Amino acid sequence: MSGKELNNIKILAFDVFGTVVDWHGSIVREVEGLNLGIKGEDFASAWRKGYKPAMQMVMTGELGWTKIDDLHRRILDEILVRFAVSSLNEDQKQDLNRVWHRLDPWPDSVEGLTRLKSRYLICTLSNGNLGLLANMAKNAGLPWDCILSAEVFRKYKPDPATYLGVAEVFDRPPAEIMMVAAHQEDLAAARACGLKSAYIERPLEFGSSRTKDVSPNPDNSLHARSIVHLADLLGC
Amino acid sequence: MSGKELNNIKILAFDVFGTVVDWHGSIVREVEGLNLGIKGEDFASAWRKGYKPAMQMVMTGELGWTKIDDLHRRILDEILVRFAVSSLNEDQKQDLNRVWHRLDPWPDSVEGLTRLKSRYLICTLSNGNLGLLANMAKNAGLPWDCILSAEVFRKYKPDPATYLGVAEVFDRPPAEIMMVAAHQEDLAAARACGLKSAYIERPLEFGSSRTKDVSPNPDNSLHARSIVHLADLLGC
Repeated sequence: MSGKELNNIKILAFDVFGTVVDWHGSIVREVEGLNLGIKGEDFASAWRKGYKPAMQMVMTGELGWTKIDDLHRRILDEILVRFAVSSLNEDQKQDLNRVWHRLDPWPDSVEGLTRLKSRYLICTLSNGNLGLLANMAKNAGLPWDCILSAEVFRKYKPDPATYLGVAEVFDRPPAEIMMVAAHQEDLAAARACGLKSAYIERPLEFGSSRTKDVSPNPDNSLHARSIVHLADLLGC
Repeated sequence: MSGKELNNIKILAFDVFGTVVDWHGSIVREVEGLNLGIKGEDFASAWRKGYKPAMQMVMTGELGWTKIDDLHRRILDEILVRFAVSSLNEDQKQDLNRVWHRLDPWPDSVEGLTRLKSRYLICTLSNGNLGLLANMAKNAGLPWDCILSAEVFRKYKPDPATYLGVAEVFDRPPAEIMMVAAHQEDLAAARACGLKSAYIERPLEFGSSRTKDVSPNPDNSLHARSIVHLADLLGC
């Protein structure tokens, strides 16, 4: 990526689950704290595994527009049965479902975002719903300039309407926006819409027992070890 | 309003133009700085006066969904003709139209919001579009937890879909949300949807030559002289 192209970037749009916050570790800690007699790692993985098929049902129209809170709850109800957990009452299930609102950030996220915010407009572009993302930001101290979500565009990533929606909201050309994510497919879809892309290494996204391939893809504009490293690369 | 009802409030949703930022003074200063040979007060008033009829065209369906940036530009083009200003080129018109993105806050807004944010989730509920509100917040240092806009709900206030939309986004009952505004009609529409309401006195909203009636309406839950005073009333 040329210096001139880098200088043109005005807006950084962040994926959130896995990129900014550690969903796996947070859910493991919460589930193990409940002493349900189940393995937190397996439960966290099963919950997240239900996420794409559930979104797919919305994207194909099989299910009307449904926000992630409600998709998470559908999946939770299924896996509680599968893991033979019957001790939770309705209030406890609602509270557990809201663990996604209080996920912990990776250790570098708040510092990195704060530095990047000094030069760029920083926003989310997440499939998480607005309320979830706002509660998470307040809880974790994530200093977003603006929270954007699939909920605004009524389409889930990787639908082009989401990436192009960011450009439309800010009335800027796609090339002035950089998508930041720990997932190559999210970044590829953003690039197909004309956005720039920055990859963040999160080798422990799925826990320490299943480390993730974080090798660079030359198609990305930038490749960073963390959000703090991204701030270094962008001179913030 | 009883102490118990006050204790139930979780979210403060703010009107922005006039309530948090001084649109009139900001536009007067900007227009007079351009030395166009026109009276800033008259120009600012004319620009704002075109706002409700333009939104009305969207609300009746005469005009498809159009964001405030584009409505502001339509009105600007009309009043430039009316005020016989022909010296601005297209770039200058675009820049002038973006004055709404850089309106100055009232002197108490940043302190008041910062104090309120310590106890409440604070969001906008403005007819301004998301990009406008995000740029304004960044420029003025407004510490929103979340920016909500008519643009999210594709309806303009006082449509009930906007007030109820806040409740839906945060998945809370309307009675846990307080609308904060310097306009009685906005607050009345919010109350009709079950929200609580707080009035903020802004006697100079239309400039010092046309002071505004800011007398209390007993239907509001709270009446404050400023956002700092609201923070006092709410014990923040």
